[in-house]
Amino acid sequence: MEVGFLGLGIMGKAMSMNLLKNGFKVTVWNRTLYKCDEVVAHGASVGETPAEVVKKCKITIAILSDPAAALSVVFDKDGVLEQICNGKGYIDMSTVDPQTSCKISEAITSKGGHFLEAPVSGSKQPAETGQLVILAAGDKALYEEAGPAFNVLGKKSFFLGQIGNGAKMKLVVNMIMGSVMNAFSEGLVLAERGGLNPHDLLDVLDLGGIANPMFRGKGPAMLRDDYSPAFPLKHQQKDMRLALALGDQNAVSMPVAAAANEAFKKGRSMGLGDVDFSAVLETVKLLKHPS
Amino acid sequence: MEVGFLGLGIMGKAMSMNLLKNGFKVTVWNRTLYKCDEVVAHGASVGETPAEVVKKCKITIAILSDPAAALSVVFDKDGVLEQICNGKGYIDMSTVDPQTSCKISEAITSKGGHFLEAPVSGSKQPAETGQLVILAAGDKALYEEAGPAFNVLGKKSFFLGQIGNGAKMKLVVNMIMGSVMNAFSEGLVLAERGGLNPHDLLDVLDLGGIANPMFRGKGPAMLRDDYSPAFPLKHQQKDMRLALALGDQNAVSMPVAAAANEAFKKGRSMGLGDVDFSAVLETVKLLKHPS
Amino acid sequence: MEVGFLGLGIMGKAMSMNLLKNGFKVTVWNRTLYKCDEVVAHGASVGETPAEVVKKCKITIAILSDPAAALSVVFDKDGVLEQICNGKGYIDMSTVDPQTSCKISEAITSKGGHFLEAPVSGSKQPAETGQLVILAAGDKALYEEAGPAFNVLGKKSFFLGQIGNGAKMKLVVNMIMGSVMNAFSEGLVLAERGGLNPHDLLDVLDLGGIANPMFRGKGPAMLRDDYSPAFPLKHQQKDMRLALALGDQNAVSMPVAAAANEAFKKGRSMGLGDVDFSAVLETVKLLKHPS
Amino acid sequence: MEVGFLGLGIMGKAMSMNLLKNGFKVTVWNRTLYKCDEVVAHGASVGETPAEVVKKCKITIAILSDPAAALSVVFDKDGVLEQICNGKGYIDMSTVDPQTSCKISEAITSKGGHFLEAPVSGSKQPAETGQLVILAAGDKALYEEAGPAFNVLGKKSFFLGQIGNGAKMKLVVNMIMGSVMNAFSEGLVLAERGGLNPHDLLDVLDLGGIANPMFRGKGPAMLRDDYSPAFPLKHQQKDMRLALALGDQNAVSMPVAAAANEAFKKGRSMGLGDVDFSAVLETVKLLKHPS
Repeated sequence: MEVGFLGLGIMGKAMSMNLLKNGFKVTVWNRTLYKCDEVVAHGASVGETPAEVVKKCKITIAILSDPAAALSVVFDKDGVLEQICNGKGYIDMSTVDPQTSCKISEAITSKGGHFLEAPVSGSKQPAETGQLVILAAGDKALYEEAGPAFNVLGKKSFFLGQIGNGAKMKLVVNMIMGSVMNAFSEGLVLAERGGLNPHDLLDVLDLGGIANPMFRGKGPAMLRDDYSPAFPLKHQQKDMRLALALGDQNAVSMPVAAAANEAFKKGRSMGLGDVDFSAVLETVKLLKHPS
Repeated sequence: MEVGFLGLGIMGKAMSMNLLKNGFKVTVWNRTLYKCDEVVAHGASVGETPAEVVKKCKITIAILSDPAAALSVVFDKDGVLEQICNGKGYIDMSTVDPQTSCKISEAITSKGGHFLEAPVSGSKQPAETGQLVILAAGDKALYEEAGPAFNVLGKKSFFLGQIGNGAKMKLVVNMIMGSVMNAFSEGLVLAERGGLNPHDLLDVLDLGGIANPMFRGKGPAMLRDDYSPAFPLKHQQKDMRLALALGDQNAVSMPVAAAANEAFKKGRSMGLGDVDFSAVLETVKLLKHPS
Repeated sequence: MEVGFLGLGIMGKAMSMNLLKNGFKVTVWNRTLYKCDEVVAHGASVGETPAEVVKKCKITIAILSDPAAALSVVFDKDGVLEQICNGKGYIDMSTVDPQTSCKISEAITSKGGHFLEAPVSGSKQPAETGQLVILAAGDKALYEEAGPAFNVLGKKSFFLGQIGNGAKMKLVVNMIMGSVMNAFSEGLVLAERGGLNPHDLLDVLDLGGIANPMFRGKGPAMLRDDYSPAFPLKHQQKDMRLALALGDQNAVSMPVAAAANEAFKKGRSMGLGDVDFSAVLETVKLLKHPS
Repeated sequence: MEVGFLGLGIMGKAMSMNLLKNGFKVTVWNRTLYKCDEVVAHGASVGETPAEVVKKCKITIAILSDPAAALSVVFDKDGVLEQICNGKGYIDMSTVDPQTSCKISEAITSKGGHFLEAPVSGSKQPAETGQLVILAAGDKALYEEAGPAFNVLGKKSFFLGQIGNGAKMKLVVNMIMGSVMNAFSEGLVLAERGGLNPHDLLDVLDLGGIANPMFRGKGPAMLRDDYSPAFPLKHQQKDMRLALALGDQNAVSMPVAAAANEAFKKGRSMGLGDVDFSAVLETVKLLKHPS
């Protein structure tokens, strides 16, 4: 199977390498060309422009850094739109908001092309090992056609219905995760201030009903004040804001998520926006001499 | 090793049977005698009163239904206090508040006895299979002496320091669990109202960083409005209240737990106090025609 | 002094009548012409189009129903923009968001005109009696030139600096008001359920440090479940959302406003969006048999 | 009319002086005797003990610093209980919790005496000028008999029903006040960070529907970071905790009060427990470099 691949950032490179290793023919493009070298060394072809890649391939996958980049690669000169046509599919695996996704979808389909949004959950390592979770929505036929590629890239892929649903699912998951992180942080501080050893709390939690990889992975670092940014606090807060906005549109009252969102905002006001979102722990910690 | 065992409710019966199976000699007592029959059939002896059990055994374990029962078995006529003395140990595995635990501790130690509070996390099935988590605090030497019994009863035991810490650890864990349940409920309703299939959300969550047994175990039932009471909502809310009070005493501000606590109170006001705490989902659901 | 006046809704009619009574010469325009009859009977002239009014008057005031109408009157054919020019001033007293205000401001000033946004606080009755509070921002010279008109229309006017600040001030005030209404509602329900007479609470509050016109005015109606819409709940919730968004942009964490906002959203989900915002009381009330 | 008066602190002295000025015969007692000098100079008699005062007077009023002092004056040797009897009335105007009030009530009535709890709202100045608000509960006949004294002491008195209701009413009012203070603080910070002058906000608020003495009185000081303690933050937080507990007992969910309570706890954790409760403003302010 032959696929185009636009964007060779951390995720894109790992994913395209993975496709090559599994026998796919891949034609890549990246804004800065030298980033193509490694994948070319492993057998990829290079396209000069997004348009050229789309012209050559029946299916083109993109994974770009943000909504602006995702739009640019489609709408700019020599972009996807110039060559997309009936019979060709375009799959955007970038994490973007539902509005951006809809805009791209409309443009692609108005040219007769097929479009799938397919944001992923998982970072660099799962990308390298094909352990991503793929949240696809849009053109069902294209989803099925892309099945062999998704099987290589992810441990599991979902087809979630109409365009926008992939982005929404990510928001809902991240919202829950943000509230859970706040609950965890409050518990860690309460344990310590209440005279317990918070390391014992980590051990007890890990044996119980809410044991989860995040507590296990981030807990010990948090107790060392280590907030190396895996997922920056300001991005987590942005996702909570967007999830709350989705709730607002649908008249869903979410008091716990709202409280968690304000805690993340407090984190931003304390200068913690660029470190890991687990730094919300700092907003709970004792600040001065209590009274 | 020979141990006394006071209280043959669901937990106590499973635990004493487990001790017998693993070669312990066990002398049991229960307020209603006929409940002793099954364990006697498996080799246990019977004591007529708590005092008699303590007189006979170097170490006596109790697991009773509530603080009142825990106090009664110690302080009433023919109670533990009449025979406890230097060289004997008493281990209360009931779930009680720190104040009750301290009161029992003072009485036992003033007679020269050794005392350990050791509430457990886990219900009937883990009790039968020796998979409890034991949260012990108090007399360290007694903790070590009881090691062989704890190894049979639990998959893991913790020694958490001074009396009261076992109870506190349970409160902190339950507080986190209550907030997590609220986060989960808000996410389920947001998914459904936002046009997603909440079953997909369960699947996506189970593949990610906050995958945990509680989501996996309770999620599908919640989507069927099935709130069969494993842990009644009113008890969960009581534990959140006590955890917030512990925070109050230590000047720890916990806005997410406070919001979750109010949601559980809303659940009580909706008549959901006696069903499972996952019924907090109902407080998030749409009530009437939105506007 | 001669002024143009665009928009003769409830507010506009009261305000233009007030200007006439106080000796101003007024040229009015309204989309549906017959609404001009009454003010014409009191001495106003009529302009056929917004452009014609602007052509005739040095200063033109507008008060329109919403952002769409505010934009239309400026940008549409025969709109304000066609005649605004150096030496002429345009004052928009509609309640709009900062973005709409900025858009109008840019268009007016690019033609050499002077622009002031001047939303008001106060409804029909204060408009009739000249007791409005005017929240002006933008062109300082125009603010001063319009002083005689503002003195007639309002009991007090403020100049708040750059364009957008008038709108922001309204959001901040409404945000505080929304939280205060929630605090009040919670207190009323707590009093009643705690065995007190909520009418006594109204009386006690009115004698104390937080006595205010809103408690006095709306309290008795709320105790009769009377939520006749003075300010619809859904509009109050929208203002809280916008105020929270302003806080988000400036990293201000506002947990109480966030909790109040979720309560108003709950109100919307209960079908109370179109009645008065005091109906948030219903979200606090007991729903079923408590446990 | 002749009354006994126990306790000559700031409030008690002002109140007893006020009674004397208005023609009452007053017999006073105070733990430290020299504090009686000034009221004696204005015509009061002195009793050696609380018991002696009660023996001499048909009605005895007490206003003491805290629950411990209120209990001591009744139950200690030479206390009220030794002389209270059928036909005599005892009115406790101290601010105490409902439990303390009930305990005193039971003791007094078991001796045949009549009891009224009557906490006041208002501080030193209203006490001097007879402008207190009196929140009475308990014995209705005694309430009426004490009418002439209440008319002198307060601008208004309420009879609120059974013992405990006076204390409860104070809690509900203080809970609302605490939430309102948080709403106000969030608004002040939002205004400033959003580019508005917070002094303008004070002026605009004071012209609108939620204008109130507290905003007017404390607002300017808050903008100077002046938190001179009129009502210490830790006492405000304690009252919110007690009000939330009252809600808990009655299954009333109060998310806004809960969020406000957590903010006051954050204030305590920042070392602000002993300054005025308006210092909750500091918890909202920007802490470091935002992101």
